[in-house]
Amino acid sequence: MNSAVTIYGVGLGPGDPDLMSVKAARLIGNARVIAHFRKPGRAGNARTLVEGLLAPGVIEVAMEYPVTTEIALDDPAYNDSLREFYDDCVQRLLVHAAQGRDVAVLCEGDPFLYGSFMHLHSRLAGKANVVVVPGISGMSGCWTASDRPITFGDDVLSVVPATLDEPSLRERFRDIDALVVMKLGRNLPKVRRALKAAGLIERAVYVERGTMAAQKVMRLADKTDDEAPYFSVILVHGQGRRP
Amino acid sequence: MNSAVTIYGVGLGPGDPDLMSVKAARLIGNARVIAHFRKPGRAGNARTLVEGLLAPGVIEVAMEYPVTTEIALDDPAYNDSLREFYDDCVQRLLVHAAQGRDVAVLCEGDPFLYGSFMHLHSRLAGKANVVVVPGISGMSGCWTASDRPITFGDDVLSVVPATLDEPSLRERFRDIDALVVMKLGRNLPKVRRALKAAGLIERAVYVERGTMAAQKVMRLADKTDDEAPYFSVILVHGQGRRP
Ligand SMILES: C[S@@+](CC[C@H](N)C(=O)[O-])C[C@H]1O[C@@H](n2cnc3c(N)ncnc32)[C@H](O)[C@@H]1O
Ligand SMILES: C[S@@+](CC[C@H](N)C(=O)[O-])C[C@H]1O[C@@H](n2cnc3c(N)ncnc32)[C@H](O)[C@@H]1O
Repeated sequence: MNSAVTIYGVGLGPGDPDLMSVKAARLIGNARVIAHFRKPGRAGNARTLVEGLLAPGVIEVAMEYPVTTEIALDDPAYNDSLREFYDDCVQRLLVHAAQGRDVAVLCEGDPFLYGSFMHLHSRLAGKANVVVVPGISGMSGCWTASDRPITFGDDVLSVVPATLDEPSLRERFRDIDALVVMKLGRNLPKVRRALKAAGLIERAVYVERGTMAAQKVMRLADKTDDEAPYFSVILVHGQGRRP
Repeated sequence: MNSAVTIYGVGLGPGDPDLMSVKAARLIGNARVIAHFRKPGRAGNARTLVEGLLAPGVIEVAMEYPVTTEIALDDPAYNDSLREFYDDCVQRLLVHAAQGRDVAVLCEGDPFLYGSFMHLHSRLAGKANVVVVPGISGMSGCWTASDRPITFGDDVLSVVPATLDEPSLRERFRDIDALVVMKLGRNLPKVRRALKAAGLIERAVYVERGTMAAQKVMRLADKTDDEAPYFSVILVHGQGRRP
């Protein structure tokens, strides 16, 4: 472990490059090596976001997720495939660290909120200095895009991944004050049914690509199709105390 | 309403000035008028954070909270006093807008997450252009300071204000995956009891002034006193799926 070298997990914020922190922008501009996750054959949203900020001659490490669409989430093969992938990513980053180069790993939103970087972070413990730079979360970008505060006074905020099964979603949507549903994508029909069951459908707001160029905000009740991209959330705004 | 003029609610992030967004730093550096909340007789944390960024000759609007420590939260006089205060703040900001000057209102963390700016935002509707700039939330700064991810996989994140009464806290702490308790301060003893009742005390981490110079992180079980400043939270990290 070369203690002069650091692997940074750098939160990039919700999508608008102007919403990156001053620290993130500086680290990325100075980095000799940047690493980023992407789906095979895609440019990668994180990489696109830093276009124009990178130093000349920067080394790029593209970490391509294994194709897992054929494997069910609860099949052990799914976890095995991801485990191997993250192990391999860590090896690739450590090669640069061993040669004395800092690495900036690009992370969408905030690295420690449902981020892929967490799986590198745990594996790097004891093998490299790791510094995490927080970022504006995607959900902050989305409630700002909705132009309404998410929580007032004593409101409890529940952040729920749409990957839960439908009974769990129904259970989690009971008695909520304020709600963010993350990881929407193909889970939208299931989430819609659970919101209806919880009597929340009229309050639900759908936000797609918050703070990005193609941002969309609409009442969920007004959304007639079931298409939701990876970057989408549903918000239910709190209604707590307001003097 | 002068449509060329804008009142900005600018999220400053959790405390480290380097964690301000590029956009926030630019808006604050260019602002002709800045406004900030503070307790009477205090410098104000938000104001301190932007020291060194302000343009020469900037006009400062200090919005001093009324002293309400003598009034119970559920006494109508409490709300009346705050209502008058926010009405008055809005009048003071609109004077500048009417004279053609943009105003940047400094907001700790993210403006739309339990922030005071929300009460100006609702009152400014139809009276001025208002633009909100999201910020890294205090809780993101705190879980980053704890050096552990807050949520994995399908974890639900519950954000609970410590201002709730003890039975409500106990109820909200049941069956949680990951938890952030906000607005700790003098509520710490009550929160501690409710965490014990929920069997969470061993997992709880106390973070004070996350990302600020005087940051403290410790297991709550190791905290022997009941003193907690305004800027403190309790975290219970999620334990969800990790390949
Ligand atoms: C794996 S999680 C990672 C979250 C990220 N670490 C953060 O702090 O925002 C990905 C999910 O975040 C949400 N998300 C992140 N950024 C978003 C944006 N700009 N607009 C809409 N949804 C977003 C979507 O629900 C997406 O499926
Ligand atoms: C009225 S709320 C405002 C939250 C703010 N809008 C945000 O996004 O973080 C204030 C509470 O946020 C928490 N908080 C904010 N920043 C913090 C920090 N840097 N360290 C610890 N707690 C913080 C504390 O619990 C505090 O009582």
